[in-house]
Amino acid sequence: MTEKTAETKVTEAQRAALGLAQLSEDERRRGLLSIADAIDEHHEEILEANERDVTAGEELLAAGEYSQALVDRLKLSASKLDSISEMVRSVAHQDDPLEKTLAARRLDEGLDLYKVAVPIGVVGTVFESRPDALVQIAALCLKSGNAVILKGGSEASHSNRVLYELIREATAELPDGWAQLVEAREDVDALLEMDDSIDLLMPRGSSEFVRYIQNNTSIPVLGHTEGICHVYVDEAADLEMASDVAYDAKVQYPAVCNAVETLLVHEDVAEEFLPEIAARYEQAGVELRGDDATREIVEEAEAATEDDWSTEYGDLVLSIKVVDSLEAALDHITTYGSKHTESIVTDDDERASRFMRSLDSASVFHNASTRFSDGYRFGLGAEVGISTGKIHARGPVGLEGLTTYKYHLEGDGHVVASYAGDDVKPYLHEELEAEWTPGDRSDE
Amino acid sequence: MTEKTAETKVTEAQRAALGLAQLSEDERRRGLLSIADAIDEHHEEILEANERDVTAGEELLAAGEYSQALVDRLKLSASKLDSISEMVRSVAHQDDPLEKTLAARRLDEGLDLYKVAVPIGVVGTVFESRPDALVQIAALCLKSGNAVILKGGSEASHSNRVLYELIREATAELPDGWAQLVEAREDVDALLEMDDSIDLLMPRGSSEFVRYIQNNTSIPVLGHTEGICHVYVDEAADLEMASDVAYDAKVQYPAVCNAVETLLVHEDVAEEFLPEIAARYEQAGVELRGDDATREIVEEAEAATEDDWSTEYGDLVLSIKVVDSLEAALDHITTYGSKHTESIVTDDDERASRFMRSLDSASVFHNASTRFSDGYRFGLGAEVGISTGKIHARGPVGLEGLTTYKYHLEGDGHVVASYAGDDVKPYLHEELEAEWTPGDRSDE
Repeated sequence: MTEKTAETKVTEAQRAALGLAQLSEDERRRGLLSIADAIDEHHEEILEANERDVTAGEELLAAGEYSQALVDRLKLSASKLDSISEMVRSVAHQDDPLEKTLAARRLDEGLDLYKVAVPIGVVGTVFESRPDALVQIAALCLKSGNAVILKGGSEASHSNRVLYELIREATAELPDGWAQLVEAREDVDALLEMDDSIDLLMPRGSSEFVRYIQNNTSIPVLGHTEGICHVYVDEAADLEMASDVAYDAKVQYPAVCNAVETLLVHEDVAEEFLPEIAARYEQAGVELRGDDATREIVEEAEAATEDDWSTEYGDLVLSIKVVDSLEAALDHITTYGSKHTESIVTDDDERASRFMRSLDSASVFHNASTRFSDGYRFGLGAEVGISTGKIHARGPVGLEGLTTYKYHLEGDGHVVASYAGDDVKPYLHEELEAEWTPGDRSDE
Repeated sequence: MTEKTAETKVTEAQRAALGLAQLSEDERRRGLLSIADAIDEHHEEILEANERDVTAGEELLAAGEYSQALVDRLKLSASKLDSISEMVRSVAHQDDPLEKTLAARRLDEGLDLYKVAVPIGVVGTVFESRPDALVQIAALCLKSGNAVILKGGSEASHSNRVLYELIREATAELPDGWAQLVEAREDVDALLEMDDSIDLLMPRGSSEFVRYIQNNTSIPVLGHTEGICHVYVDEAADLEMASDVAYDAKVQYPAVCNAVETLLVHEDVAEEFLPEIAARYEQAGVELRGDDATREIVEEAEAATEDDWSTEYGDLVLSIKVVDSLEAALDHITTYGSKHTESIVTDDDERASRFMRSLDSASVFHNASTRFSDGYRFGLGAEVGISTGKIHARGPVGLEGLTTYKYHLEGDGHVVASYAGDDVKPYLHEELEAEWTPGDRSDE
């Protein structure tokens, strides 16, 4: 048998999507639980396949073509598999993002309109090495009733294939072809072209990788590029609070996109604030880079270059700038920021409001660490990802980001002609508190 | 002075967008009312410019390069200008789509998260001949706080320029550059490339035109291509109702995208239903094209070709097919439909539910004419357009389609470190019924 083309796989997924949309919450949950069980029951098989990927990765590491970090990300273990099946069970027990009426409106007697949450359809994902990403993405898509195209990295191909086959077998009762594995590198470009059949792309990987996807497709993309986040310490800040927020935002976990990269400090408080925070940062091993005004106060800071202001360090490095006004802080963020997360520390609510309204960032905080910008902390349940796009889903995205809506209209033979012409019948347009149930009309 | 490049104009619009997002509802409304007044006060100037476009259009008509319909669409009159300024006033008085808290959640004591409706930013529009489109789009964007790039057709260039200047002068108090006129044809391609600075594209024109835009940009597009809508008369239909719905869906206004193009009839009711509806259609001058089974019953129907099933006639032409089951109807619609609007006529709620759940169309109706698929009839207020995309906005789109959201987090010096590590502090994640006001925190 020859391998199916990417086009064939996507067509199968499209067909499966129509069936998936009709599954009950219970059927989708049962599918997820049986995926979790399958992972628990097949450790040996998965770890054997993973060992082949890791061995190949180590050979490439020895040849200097791979990094240790990449090989580490690739490696599965019994305990990692436990946390993967636990994650799948947790997704299974999330609130159902479907079967919800988002709005209902009586257009006229016996004519009721319902806006109903539905799956998007076919979600295409392209992800780098971690084999756990395959399972997580498949679980999120199944929970939200979407068919999924999984394109993993070739370095994890043995692991991915085993995990994919386990998922397929575990969900044999669901519409056939709901999950599709795509392996060839050239198929990525084929997927990017399929704007008629793939409804949403969800790339996972480096900023450059996500940007490449965004720039090479007309399919909507849910993903995030850089996180160049800012903390601004206002002249009206409680400086002890400012120190805690600025410290947490950089040090608590510097490798993630919601960590702060540039600290902006109002000149009126710079002399009091900077030496104290610089000492704390130094103790935590943070390398500081400052503008001239900062370096006059913090001597150990290196000189920041123009590039520093637009760099996502993702590490214990921080750039610092002294600004002469709230406006200068806003200008800096607008010029260099990536519209991810910015925080102001101030006791002045009017200035906080100006900061929060003026910035075009997905998350704007007042007296809180940028690190809160996260689906779990926001209470969104399972995190689908963080979006740096402004359309459809923005900032931290929960399962809702994998849904769209449909309009259901229940009538009783209503025709538009009754509402047109000289003797126009008016619409009622009354908001209803009702869930759509088949055939449910206001006159019944 | 040399003409500014499209890039410069978009950069100006981006800057203006930051200011627009901070305007109050009242400031935006006042801007709209002064646009309406300016149109009322400058009829002569507008009609003079329009006359130049119409004259040029008529010359091209005489040369066989333009159609009469195009010249008609181009032509303004005093009464048309009255309806344009009335439309602007009506947009001004719509409910504000901004300054709304869409959701609020207490993450912990003193740490409250608000999801706040905000403008998208910079909306790019490309529209064909009608000069009234320029005013309507500018009004919808201003109401929703968006900066707008207006690219009209060259055939309406004199009219567009005068209308644009009036809008600019009337809104001189608003952030400078919020509306930008782009005139050169080659600038369209430049706009399509600006995915870093244009947040949403709203093309208006033929299906081919919208599809061209969709296929040539990675900017999200809000627009609609074909409307190949279906009415399915089920075996369990009330045939009198079916006749009224099928008649209205085709005849009430055949030129629009929500008119029916293909009528599907269950074989068990075809012999009773088809002769009656065919007679009504004939009286209304509808040309019928049927499959073999239809033509056995309706002799005057032409033979439908494969092309008929995927054609948007936009006219008094209808294709008819007899199907042997609900499933066959669903298959037909899935194969040939454009995911716009489909209606089932049936007294069987279970079958209606199956129809509505199985189809991946923006609007699915039960016992109602497809012609209800419209922002005004749906009660959405001013209609921004109809979207055949599935992401962000789907089906008829109101002003909400020109907004996105931002997360505002109000804390009191909260840091993530408190919620991590061995002695983990739990999140509360309680839904709040509250509007965001600056500095408003749960402990106050």
